[in-house]
Amino acid sequence: MFYFCGLFLKIMSTNKPELYTSFSPALLHLYDVSNSIVVIIDVLRATSTIATALYNGAKSVIPVDSVSHCIEISKQIQGITAGERDGKIAEGLEYGNSPFEYPREFIEGKTLVLTTTNGTKLLHMALDKGARQIVTGSFSNLDEVCNYLLLQNLPVVLACAAWKDRVNIEDMLFAGAVINKVKDSFDINCDSSQVAETIYTQAKEDLYGFMKIKNASHYLRLSNYGLEKDIRYCLTPNTAPVVPFYEDGKLILQR
Amino acid sequence: MFYFCGLFLKIMSTNKPELYTSFSPALLHLYDVSNSIVVIIDVLRATSTIATALYNGAKSVIPVDSVSHCIEISKQIQGITAGERDGKIAEGLEYGNSPFEYPREFIEGKTLVLTTTNGTKLLHMALDKGARQIVTGSFSNLDEVCNYLLLQNLPVVLACAAWKDRVNIEDMLFAGAVINKVKDSFDINCDSSQVAETIYTQAKEDLYGFMKIKNASHYLRLSNYGLEKDIRYCLTPNTAPVVPFYEDGKLILQR
Repeated sequence: MFYFCGLFLKIMSTNKPELYTSFSPALLHLYDVSNSIVVIIDVLRATSTIATALYNGAKSVIPVDSVSHCIEISKQIQGITAGERDGKIAEGLEYGNSPFEYPREFIEGKTLVLTTTNGTKLLHMALDKGARQIVTGSFSNLDEVCNYLLLQNLPVVLACAAWKDRVNIEDMLFAGAVINKVKDSFDINCDSSQVAETIYTQAKEDLYGFMKIKNASHYLRLSNYGLEKDIRYCLTPNTAPVVPFYEDGKLILQR
Repeated sequence: MFYFCGLFLKIMSTNKPELYTSFSPALLHLYDVSNSIVVIIDVLRATSTIATALYNGAKSVIPVDSVSHCIEISKQIQGITAGERDGKIAEGLEYGNSPFEYPREFIEGKTLVLTTTNGTKLLHMALDKGARQIVTGSFSNLDEVCNYLLLQNLPVVLACAAWKDRVNIEDMLFAGAVINKVKDSFDINCDSSQVAETIYTQAKEDLYGFMKIKNASHYLRLSNYGLEKDIRYCLTPNTAPVVPFYEDGKLILQR
């Protein structure tokens, strides 16, 4: 009886799709993205801003990998140029990378053309590697992303944008939050995922306090620019419950 | 008075050397190794075996990056060929990568020529990148390595060997243990280091239990080969209190 139960559990377990976490774009090549949903994670602040803009009615967000490309595309489609380099509004662009710049009364019906230091570059990397699906994740849309992953029942790669390829705490925290919610439905043989969930479990009661006490490099960078309000928002779950989905060159909400 | 104290502390703090942690060989290029002591970390099992062999009187350990190179060099110097690929003794070599294969009665006065899947490759990578100094670290020689780093007062890169570039828990745990002991003497602006210390602090009362409960991929790999005894040894602090130091192509004990 126990043998059959064990066998049944084993069969059940091997039928689950795999889930991996990549802590940096420089590690993405280690995972089979061509078979997976790739969740692009850039908590501070690209993917929080993408979720917020779409939740507030943006028509779409076009992620581009350079400032010149951002300006060029924006001209063609009458879009809004937005983005940052090194945490500040990039020269030549109209708007930055703060979710507070995109309230409904401004962004509704418009298209944002966005370029950021890490997040939009990682998205293009996943695209170049032939990702099966690309969605973006942040605490702002945590539960929606988890529900989406559970419904799809496909392999998943949680891809952290990091900071210029260096591992960061906030993207790891979000990966850990996702794992914490979906782990029973996935086969997880991945130390990075275990680490991410362990860190999240320790931090979840006060994500902001954890970032501060751990001297997170991005916390320091943004708080030096007076952006504590952005950090607090970007660590708050479910303020923008949507799933930004990449299709034909843009991030849109699924029909 | 408070101002001067603050200023004094700031000057003291900026005078501290920097410490970074690289979770994978694929991230090593992000750090300035040419100015640093690079601690090569391959807890299961290369750097534990290196410390043990040298503590037990091996004349030196020559780390090589391929099996053919291992056999060739060993012939020239009458050394012992040793190493593994994918956790098992590599074909054509005499011995494996278990610290238990190198007791004093066997290894004293002999030279080990060692090649492993991750650790020896990472060492050559650090060498190619012009590391200022290279030492190897493992729980077996934890306190000795920490004391060495504190005495040198130079920048440090804790370089995890990982598993085929994928982040692993055990190397992160050792990096965290080092950080836990030396952090007051270094300037640490590195999220990876913060994560490593957080994980270590949570795990330190029972490192073996933590590896097991977290389903660490290398724990599973080695325990499938019946190597729990190796894992327990490699997670035990200070069984081989030496500092293996790389000089002229080999790891030796400092004079």
